This record gives sequence, structure tokens and C-alpha cells, in this order.
Amino acid sequence: MKILFKDARILSMYEGEEIYRGDLLTDGDTIAYVGKENKDLKADRTIDCHGNLLLPGFKNAHTHSAMSFSRSLSDDLALQDWLYKRIFPLEDKLTPSDIYYLSKVSVLEYLSGGITACFDMYYHPEEMARCAVDMGFRTVLLGTVTNYRESVAEMVESYHRINGHNPLVTYRLGFHAEYTCKDEILKELARAAHELKCPIYTHISETQNEVEGCKQRHDGMTPAEYFESLGLFDYGGGGFHCVAFTDHDIEIFKRHGCSVVTNPGSNSKLASGIAPLTKFVEAGLNLAVGTDGAGSNNGLDFFYEMRLACVLQKLLNHDPASFDAMLALKAATVGGAKAMGLDDCLYLKEGQKADLTMIDLNKPSMQPLNNIAKNLVYSGAKDCVALTMIGGKIFYENGEFFVGEDVKEIYRKAQEITDRLKAE
Amino acid sequence: MKILFKDARILSMYEGEEIYRGDLLTDGDTIAYVGKENKDLKADRTIDCHGNLLLPGFKNAHTHSAMSFSRSLSDDLALQDWLYKRIFPLEDKLTPSDIYYLSKVSVLEYLSGGITACFDMYYHPEEMARCAVDMGFRTVLLGTVTNYRESVAEMVESYHRINGHNPLVTYRLGFHAEYTCKDEILKELARAAHELKCPIYTHISETQNEVEGCKQRHDGMTPAEYFESLGLFDYGGGGFHCVAFTDHDIEIFKRHGCSVVTNPGSNSKLASGIAPLTKFVEAGLNLAVGTDGAGSNNGLDFFYEMRLACVLQKLLNHDPASFDAMLALKAATVGGAKAMGLDDCLYLKEGQKADLTMIDLNKPSMQPLNNIAKNLVYSGAKDCVALTMIGGKIFYENGEFFVGEDVKEIYRKAQEITDRLKAE
Repeated sequence: MKILFKDARILSMYEGEEIYRGDLLTDGDTIAYVGKENKDLKADRTIDCHGNLLLPGFKNAHTHSAMSFSRSLSDDLALQDWLYKRIFPLEDKLTPSDIYYLSKVSVLEYLSGGITACFDMYYHPEEMARCAVDMGFRTVLLGTVTNYRESVAEMVESYHRINGHNPLVTYRLGFHAEYTCKDEILKELARAAHELKCPIYTHISETQNEVEGCKQRHDGMTPAEYFESLGLFDYGGGGFHCVAFTDHDIEIFKRHGCSVVTNPGSNSKLASGIAPLTKFVEAGLNLAVGTDGAGSNNGLDFFYEMRLACVLQKLLNHDPASFDAMLALKAATVGGAKAMGLDDCLYLKEGQKADLTMIDLNKPSMQPLNNIAKNLVYSGAKDCVALTMIGGKIFYENGEFFVGEDVKEIYRKAQEITDRLKAE
Repeated sequence: MKILFKDARILSMYEGEEIYRGDLLTDGDTIAYVGKENKDLKADRTIDCHGNLLLPGFKNAHTHSAMSFSRSLSDDLALQDWLYKRIFPLEDKLTPSDIYYLSKVSVLEYLSGGITACFDMYYHPEEMARCAVDMGFRTVLLGTVTNYRESVAEMVESYHRINGHNPLVTYRLGFHAEYTCKDEILKELARAAHELKCPIYTHISETQNEVEGCKQRHDGMTPAEYFESLGLFDYGGGGFHCVAFTDHDIEIFKRHGCSVVTNPGSNSKLASGIAPLTKFVEAGLNLAVGTDGAGSNNGLDFFYEMRLACVLQKLLNHDPASFDAMLALKAATVGGAKAMGLDDCLYLKEGQKADLTMIDLNKPSMQPLNNIAKNLVYSGAKDCVALTMIGGKIFYENGEFFVGEDVKEIYRKAQEITDRLKAE
């Protein structure tokens, strides 16, 4: 199947390239042509973009898709009440197939917001893998090792079982956090990373409290310092949150080529603080953006995350000039793809995967056209998303989903599961 | 014309009333019936809501609608560069009819986001009044007295000329700020407020810098203290921004029944700071929400403002339990109407104006239905707005505008004006 987007504005996100007017042709799951030349391109379907904007889809580099059940279930509560009284007890009741059905609601939300891939951290990764394949959604799954649930052996088994089976789905090594993994597990994780020569990812320094606890447990070391001492990052990887990161933590991440995935929506709603993104960028770290799960954020919306990331840096640095919108746009697209190992989903360029979104510039918040990229970050919202394509297939167009099943049935099933979880 | 909304979920915003399932009938510009009883209601048009949510439209209690030209024109700059190099020079070139055409783009944006009224502060208020009447948009205009442009006499003339002519448009007394109005003008303003027995509104304590300047000029008094000493608030009114408000300023506002209009999007993007909303609410002040103009925010989107207002309070107070979402929803609807003097636009109740919005709960970010009001604040976005009605007329439905003219022509005209302003 070949799809031709004619007369688009193209924001390729390729370093140094400005927005230009041109065409884009897909062939199968790949971009076959993109450029300004007036070629006579043939396709099975031609979409006249009338100057609307094409850009790479957003990469949601930290999420827990199955947590849709927890949306608006535990807001405006103290952190411990939120986690221990509301989230954990319900999670304990989840069956593997619940995870499959609940994740579908989040995938619909991603599609409606121009998100074309996610880095998903949850138990029973085979369930989200099944959801991804059934819905056509590009997904990088992540280990979720803790003292209580997933073991390192199970993680390694998932790694071998999931990778290489479907071009849409990959699996990476990961663990929950320092405070949920005892020493011997962390050492076992480091051995696994070394054996597989693989990067590893984790929640890290989400709160100052977490950092203080780690220092007490581990000779005054921050989580990043402790993980480095164990050799966990010898093959790179990355961290989610990184709110209470020190300058030395930044150096460690730089040394090992680790990515930072920021979660401004979740960190502000849980009052965890503001991550020093400006410092990360100045240090040359790869920065990505994630929504976190629906229990803590609660919308999985990259327009909100990008805008919030920018304005929080301006507040933190007392400087309206700090953290230019383009940094957020880069983190939300290229930075996310890099963090997730999706090196063929970086740009709108020939040979890259056809993962993209079209923005309707005929929405009032996109007018006038003084600076389209800044419009996107500072006044864009989900109503501007006209189309979302993954691997050359259109899954969302003009407010309608094309996911091979009835959307209301997905909602009905998720509500049924949620009601069962909430029942005593 | 009578319109019947059947089988809706109704969030009336009436104190203490929960969401219930029922019907709402409009008659002319008024709500003729709303309730649970299964009445045999007749109408010219019946809309089956299938359980979607009706609530009062959002009230944008501080904006400069004509500033659509300045969207994405001056982002990520230092405050003084933004104002003096980018905004003021272009504003100087605006003709009255430019204001008419540029305001239309903002009205479209309000409609697409469920906003049904605005409190508009700009020069040549007769132009925005004309735009409001032509587009059917409820507007409270505000004086914009400064040393340089609008005089107190002109403000009083606008007050008499605009009020009482069209049910959609009212006019209130206002001035730009302490730092742009010299003593004799402020005293003249106080005399006008006393003569007309009217509330008065102004930008106030937007930054700490502004407060320090005022203290130097006026014997150590903050703007609120100084205005009180002049008797400006003897008939009430309100203030926009209120970021650097002291406890004594809050007492003053409480004493005079003044409203606080918060602008979290603008205040964070310009790095002005975070207004202490929690304190305002604890003190019993009426709190409203405004977007400010497109030059500083840049999207005029109440979903963003509500969510941002909540998460910034959580960050400010280091407490995820502070500033419950319902406070933001109340400020965005009832609080705004009160601040603007729209006492017939407070609730979805019989006899109130039929100013409302319908939210499509069949969007993935609205699922599952654990807590619909919190979904609205924490995961709502403009794609959830199914319909916007003002004075019993539908102006936006399923992504289409019904404003009596071609939307693309409105964009074309605004772009033409913007390009002219930007040209040397």
C-alpha cells in the first residue's frame, strides 16, 4: 500500500532543516519519498494536505498503558495515600488479560494525540505486546523487575521471547527503582545487562525523598551513583523522572550515554518537583518526554507535556527565555525515538518508518501562521491532530479511529474491568 | 427557537449538586427546563446526548482578544524584549478595524474550547463589541485607561455608550495597571467609580518587580494597598494576575469583595511566578480564570489553564492534595461569571442564560468514567468539546463553526493584517 501526502508543510525534525512545502510518499511501512520536487508520484491513495503540517509522530518515552483503570481514581491525595490505598490494592487484582484490554484505551488516546510509539513499563509485557500487534501500535516494552513481582530471569526470558518476532514490538531491560530492588537483584540486573550487552532503564530520583533514602541505604550515594558503581549503565540506558538529579548524576548519565525521560505532568501533579531540563540539555544529554500512567497525570497528551515542560523551566530558572519550544518538540519526537532505540523513527526522511501525524493548521489556535512550530508547542491541542499513521497505516483520521474494532466496545470492556477492580 | 438536549449527564455547577442524568430545554436565550423528570418536552430541535456531559460554558475572565496577531511572534524572549521590541511596536500600528478582525480569530478559539464568554481588555472596545454582536459571543468589555492612550473621560463615555444596547455585551470600568497610570489619573478613576457606583478592574501584582516599583513610588504601599487608599475598590471589582500578592493584599480584596482572576498559562510562560490560589480560596475570595492574550500564553484553552492551575498549586505547596480539581472547575465557570457580573450565567438552572458546552465522553481521555469532573480537569482537552452554545444558539458542533461566515476568510483577513503589522 502506497499513500501520497500532497502539498503538505513538512517539519522533518532533521537537524537544521526548516519547515518546507512538499510531498511525502509511503511504501509499505516506510517513507519512500519526501521532498520539494514536483515528481509524478503514484499511490493507492492520495491525500491533499492543503498545506497542513506533517511531522514525525510523538514518542511517549515513559508510560504504563494498562493503568487507564486508575484515571481520576485517586487525584488530589497525598502521595502515600494515592499509591498504597488506591493504586497498589487495585493493581493486585489485575489479571493478564485485564492488562491487554486496559492498554487498548491508552493506545486510542495516543493515536488521537499524534503519538505513534510508546515505551511501556508494566507487568506481563506479553499482554501489551499482544495489544500493540492487534492494534498496529509501535511499542517498546520494558522490564519491570522488583523484589515482589517480576524476577531478573523472567525479564531475560521476556527479552528473548518478545524481540525479533514483530517489527512493531521490541523489548528492553528495565527495573522499577532503587527503593523496590534489593542489592542482590540490582547486581543480578547488572550481570544480565553485561551478558546481553544491553542498555537498562529505571525510575530514578523522582523525588528528593527517594534520593535521601538511597543515600542512607548506600553509603551516601545517589541512585545514579549507586547504579554506576554496580556497572548497570555500562551499556547505556536511561532514567525516568530525574527530578532530584545532581550535577554529578548528570555527569554519570553523560558518561554512559544515558537518556533522560522527563515527565512534567506527573511530577507536577504529584508535587515531586521540576526536573532541571535546561541543565540536561546544556550537558548534551539526550532528552525524551513521557506521560507516565493515567493514574498520576491523568491525560496522556503530548501537547500538554511539551507546553508544560517549557513553562516549568521558565518558572524554575526565573527566565522566560529559557527552554525554547524547539527543545520540547525535539525531545517529544527525535529524543524519544533515540531513548527507545527506534533509530528508524527519528525523522521524516526516506528510508525511515512512516510514523507521522498531520496537524490541521485551520484550527483557530494555529492561526495566524507566524511560527508554526511554536504554535504547535504553545497553542496546540489534541483537536489539531488530523491524522496519525504508524508503519504506513492510518489509524486515526478526522476524529475517527481505524483500529479494526469498535471503539465503544473497547471502552465497555475497560469500564467492566475497572468496576470489577473497584468492587470490594 | 427551542432546543432539547435529551439524556445528558448534567454538571450544573450549582453548589452541592452532583452530576445527574437528565434533560435540558432552551427557549430563546434562556434555560427553560433542566432536570431528571421524564417530561414530554417539545422543541424545534432535539439532540440525543447519549449520556454526554453538559456543563456551563467556561468564562474567560481575562483576555485581550485582538492580540491573536501576536501569537508565536515573540516566544522564548526576555520580558522586556518581548514587550518593548515585539508587542508594543506592532500594537502601535493597529487600526480600529484591525481589532475587529483579529478578535474574530480568538472568538473562534473560545468556541472550539467550550468558552462562552470573555472579559476583554483592549483599546477601541467598540470594535470588540461589534465582533461580539456579529458573532453572537457574550462579552464583557473593560476600560483600558493608561497615561498614553485611553483617558478616563473616554472610558466613561464607552461605559454609557456600550451598556444597555445588546444583551450580549456589557462594559465595566478598568485601567491598565499602577505602573502605567499616574496619580492624577488613578484619582480620576476613583472619582468615576464613585460617581457611577461601579466596580473597577486592573492588572495587579503580576510580578514582584511591579510590586517593588509601586512601593518605591507610593510610600511602601503595594498596588492593592495604594488602590485601597484611593478608594478605587469602594464598589468592588477585581485584579488580574495577583502573582505577588501579600496576605494584606488578600485582606484588602476580601474587604471590598474583589475577585482574583488568575492567569497561570501567561504567568508561567513569562516566568512571573505562581499566584497563591490556595490562599485566595482559603480567604474566601472569588476566584476566576483567564487566558490572557495570545501574545503571552499562547493558546486560549481552558483545559490547559485548569489543569495547570491545579498542578502549579501542588508544586508551590509541595502537596499533591492541595487545590482540588473541583476548585479549578468552579473558578473556570461560576467564579468567572461572578467576576464579570454575569449573574445569569452561573449555573445550568432554569431562568439562567443557555450558555453551555457539551463534552464528548466517548473520547479515550474521558474513559473510564471513574470521576467525570476530574477527567474534565486532568485529562480533558479541546478534542472533547462536542458543542458550544451561547444564548440558546449553537456556534460550534462536531468540529464545525456556525458563525455566519467562512472561517477561512476570518483566518485570511487576520493573516493579512498580521503580515502588514510585521512589515517594516
